Amino acid sequence: MEPIFCGTSPIVGFRFSMHPMSDNFIRILKTALAETDTSNVWMQTDDVSTVIRGKQHHVFNVAKALVLHAAKTKEHIALSGTFSIGCPGDSAGDNYLEVEDELANTDPASQYVSSQFALYPMNNPDYMAVIYREVERAKAHGVWNDSMHYASGIHGDIHEVFKFYEESFTQARTDEHPHLVMTVSMSINSPSHIGGQHA
Amino acid sequence: MEPIFCGTSPIVGFRFSMHPMSDNFIRILKTALAETDTSNVWMQTDDVSTVIRGKQHHVFNVAKALVLHAAKTKEHIALSGTFSIGCPGDSAGDNYLEVEDELANTDPASQYVSSQFALYPMNNPDYMAVIYREVERAKAHGVWNDSMHYASGIHGDIHEVFKFYEESFTQARTDEHPHLVMTVSMSINSPSHIGGQHA
Ligand SMILES: [Ca+2]
Repeated sequence: MEPIFCGTSPIVGFRFSMHPMSDNFIRILKTALAETDTSNVWMQTDDVSTVIRGKQHHVFNVAKALVLHAAKTKEHIALSGTFSIGCPGDSAGDNYLEVEDELANTDPASQYVSSQFALYPMNNPDYMAVIYREVERAKAHGVWNDSMHYASGIHGDIHEVFKFYEESFTQARTDEHPHLVMTVSMSINSPSHIGGQHA
Repeated sequence: MEPIFCGTSPIVGFRFSMHPMSDNFIRILKTALAETDTSNVWMQTDDVSTVIRGKQHHVFNVAKALVLHAAKTKEHIALSGTFSIGCPGDSAGDNYLEVEDELANTDPASQYVSSQFALYPMNNPDYMAVIYREVERAKAHGVWNDSMHYASGIHGDIHEVFKFYEESFTQARTDEHPHLVMTVSMSINSPSHIGGQHA
């Protein structure tokens, strides 16, 4: 049994899989990785997924840039992943917390994204109220799409979508309840997005 | 604000995306769906994901069958999804709880699966102990592969892997803490699985 201690680390992690639905999936993934500046995050890839860790704004910045670069191939791209912070079982290593604050990826290109997310505030008796509040936040941001079992639909331009996700990930945790998990699934350049603007 | 009440429903849900990394992804998905008997679960697909709901053993049975049929194409298949039960915000509908207990899909074909999972027992102060116990269960089942940030690696034959996931999903919840979430990511026929048996 590993020790159980309170999670107070500011390390944010994102474990994800990105799937180009193309025979050229390896080239597309390698190109997206080459075109993204990942120097501000710790990164490791295995046969199932990739994890990046570091300061929150760098983790979200790198995640968005990887998706944006893959999307530029015009292939149908899917991404599924989990953002985490404050897990009591987390280790202190592999974090890149000493890097500078300036964002490394600043491509402003537009890209329509249809996505779904779910928030899991851990060990928080008021977690359902937190979740309902964040759904209201999505509506206020203009990125809310739909309600569904086990998730909420979020869509719009990739920059607006990621801006909402990062803000929601910040607002849904507190010093008292620091362990927060957020799952996100995205679909980009889908054949069902007629004209690139419909979900 | 929707009402917040205690989740006592036995409805299990699985919201997932399956991604064949092939130009033929639409045909592969449609064929897998056609070859799987989904009559015991409620199912709905949108542009980002698919959700199935019903009795627990039918939900796991249909999920496994969909993956197995897609895997038979020998294409590289990825699946990411979230199993849920007991969410206080869940609705009572769309559940297929009245169907018979006999499993609809019984194909025993072997298939190596490399996967990763994470358990999120909601509103449970002892949730870390639950998680560590389930990692020990994976080792006892012979399907544990590796530890990693935010997840645990689980691999082996598809039938052993799904058997473990269903048992862990049962054991990680209690009457007192009925809301449980389990994320699973799978990689099948990956170019990195040399000989079909390595992760
Ligand atoms: Ca091709």
